[in-house]
Amino acid sequence: MKVLITTVPFGDKNRLPLDLLEDAGIEYLINPLGKKLTEDELAEMVTDFDALIAGTEPITERVMQQASRLRFISRVGIGLDSVDLLAAERRGIKVSYTPDAPAPAVAELTIGLMISLLRSVQLSNLKMHQGNWNRFFGRRLAEITIGVIGLGRIGQRVLNRLSVFGTPRLLVNDIVIDHEIGRRFKVEWVPKDQIFREADLITLHLPLTAKTKNMIRREQLESMKPDAVIINTSRGGIINESDLYEVMRDGHLAGAAIDVFVQEPYEGKLREIERCLLTAHMGSMSVDCRTRMEIEATEEAIRFLLGQTLESEVPEEEYAVQREGL
Amino acid sequence: MKVLITTVPFGDKNRLPLDLLEDAGIEYLINPLGKKLTEDELAEMVTDFDALIAGTEPITERVMQQASRLRFISRVGIGLDSVDLLAAERRGIKVSYTPDAPAPAVAELTIGLMISLLRSVQLSNLKMHQGNWNRFFGRRLAEITIGVIGLGRIGQRVLNRLSVFGTPRLLVNDIVIDHEIGRRFKVEWVPKDQIFREADLITLHLPLTAKTKNMIRREQLESMKPDAVIINTSRGGIINESDLYEVMRDGHLAGAAIDVFVQEPYEGKLREIERCLLTAHMGSMSVDCRTRMEIEATEEAIRFLLGQTLESEVPEEEYAVQREGL
Repeated sequence: MKVLITTVPFGDKNRLPLDLLEDAGIEYLINPLGKKLTEDELAEMVTDFDALIAGTEPITERVMQQASRLRFISRVGIGLDSVDLLAAERRGIKVSYTPDAPAPAVAELTIGLMISLLRSVQLSNLKMHQGNWNRFFGRRLAEITIGVIGLGRIGQRVLNRLSVFGTPRLLVNDIVIDHEIGRRFKVEWVPKDQIFREADLITLHLPLTAKTKNMIRREQLESMKPDAVIINTSRGGIINESDLYEVMRDGHLAGAAIDVFVQEPYEGKLREIERCLLTAHMGSMSVDCRTRMEIEATEEAIRFLLGQTLESEVPEEEYAVQREGL
Repeated sequence: MKVLITTVPFGDKNRLPLDLLEDAGIEYLINPLGKKLTEDELAEMVTDFDALIAGTEPITERVMQQASRLRFISRVGIGLDSVDLLAAERRGIKVSYTPDAPAPAVAELTIGLMISLLRSVQLSNLKMHQGNWNRFFGRRLAEITIGVIGLGRIGQRVLNRLSVFGTPRLLVNDIVIDHEIGRRFKVEWVPKDQIFREADLITLHLPLTAKTKNMIRREQLESMKPDAVIINTSRGGIINESDLYEVMRDGHLAGAAIDVFVQEPYEGKLREIERCLLTAHMGSMSVDCRTRMEIEATEEAIRFLLGQTLESEVPEEEYAVQREGL
C-alpha cells in the first residue's frame, strides 16, 4: 500500500502524520518537486499509488486515468474545486476532506486583513520603507458596513470574531438563510447586489463552483463604493482577476486583499497595484490548523487503507454541486 | 481670544470642531506648516495665543516662555510626555486631554498588527509584489503566549478584543495589579522579565515616562525568544530604536510592528529591516476616534475660554509622574 502526498510542506512543523503512516506500515512519497503540481506533473507522478493525500492541485479525470491503483483521495483542506468528484465516483475512488480544520486560521487571517486594509497598514509600511512618512486616516470595523458573502464554517467564524469590535452594520448573503445565526450576530440577509452597492468592506467565504466562478466581475466591482475594500481568502476565480486589476488600476476601490488565485503561484498583474495586499494562499497556514488538517487527512487515509470506517467522506451535496456543472 | 491648533490634519474628516470654535466666536489658526512642529517652530508660532489645541509636538518651558498669553493647553490625545506639566503648573497654565477617545482605534490597530506579524502578511505581500510566491507558516493567537505590558485603557481593550480568538496564554504586567481584570481575562500577573523570556508576542500599552523610557533595550530584546515578535503602538522611546535595529539586523526576533518613534516623521534605520512593519503613528487615526478626540479637545478649550468648568483636566498623578523625573 503506497500513499502519494502531493501537498507541500507536509509533516514539516509536526512529524506526527508521517509517524502515523510509518506505524501503520504504509509506504509514502512526499511530492519531490516541492511545489504545487500541474495536471501533467501529477499524472506522471500518480501511477503507482493506492491513495493520495492531496492539496489543491488538479485531480482530473486524466490524472485518474494514469492512476490505475488509486482508490482513495484524502484532501488536506476543504475546497473540492480541484477534484473531479464525478470522475472519482465513476471509478469507485472515494474522497474525504477536512472541512473544519482550516476554518479558525482562515477566519483569523481575514480579520487581520480587514484591519490592515481599513487602516492602510501595508501602504504606510511600504511608504515608510521607501523613505516616506504617510499618516493614513482609517476606519474602525464598528464604523462601517461589512458584507459577508458565504456563511459556512468560515463566514460564521468571521462574524463571531467581529463581534468584539463594536457594532458594524452587517449585510450577509448565503444560499441558505440561517435565522439563528442572523439573530445571534444581528445581521441583515440581503441580495448580493445590495452588498456590492452598500458595503464598505466585502469578504468572501464561498466554495468555487459553477455558480461562484467569476461571480464578481467588472460590473459588480464597479457597483461597489469607490472607497470600499474587498477580501478574498476563499478561492481564486470567484473575483475575476483581470477585471479587479483593471478597475483598481483606474482608481476604483481603496484596497483589496487577495490570498487565493486562479493560478498559483500567482504571477499576474495585481502585483502592479500597491493598494492590493497579496498573500500566497496562507489562509489555513497556521501551525495548529495545518497540523490538524494533515493529521486528519492522514488518519482518514490510514482508515481507508486498513479497511476501517471513514469519518469525513465528502457528502453527497458536494457531488450534486459538481453535477450541476463546475 | 485666539486658539492655535498645532495638530494636523484637523477638522479634515469632520468640520464640527471648527464650527464649534466659530459659533463660540473664538478665532483660531491651524498650524500652517502642515506637519508636526519642532520646539523652535512652535516657540515662534505660539506667541499670540490664549490656548493651544495640541498634538504631540514638544510644549516645553522654552515654548511657554514665548507664549505670554497662554493659559490653556488642550491635548488631542492621551500621552503627556510632550507637555512639560510642571512648567505649565508654575505658570498657571491648565492642561486637559482626551484619554478615552483614542483607545478603541489603538486597540483595534494593535490586533491587526498582531495578526499581520503572526501570519507574515506584510512579508508575503512584499515578496509577491517583488515577483516571489512565499507561503509563510504562521501561528494563531490562540497558539501562543501573549505578553501585554501596561493594562490601562488601551491594554484592557486589547485583552477584550483578544478574547474572541481562542485562549492564548496571557502574561500581563502593570504597576497596579487589578484582580478583577485578571479574573475576567484569565491572565497571569508576572514580572516584565518573565514576559520578555516567555512571550511569543509582546505588546506595549504604556505612557512614556522616566521609568518607561528605554525600558526595552538590547538586554531585554535579547532575552526574548528568537522567533518572538514585538509591537509598540504606545510611544516612541520605550523600545530603544537603535538596539531594536541591531538585534533584528543580526537575525533576532521574527518581526516587529512599530507605529511610534522618538523622532517623527521617522527617518531611522529600522526602515532597512523588511520584517519590521512600520506605520506612521496611526494608532488613533480612525475617522471616528480622531473626530471624537478633536471635538472633545475643542469643547474643553471652549469651556476654558468661556470660563466654564473643565471636564477632562489632566489628573494630579500625571503631574506626580513628571515630578519623579521625565
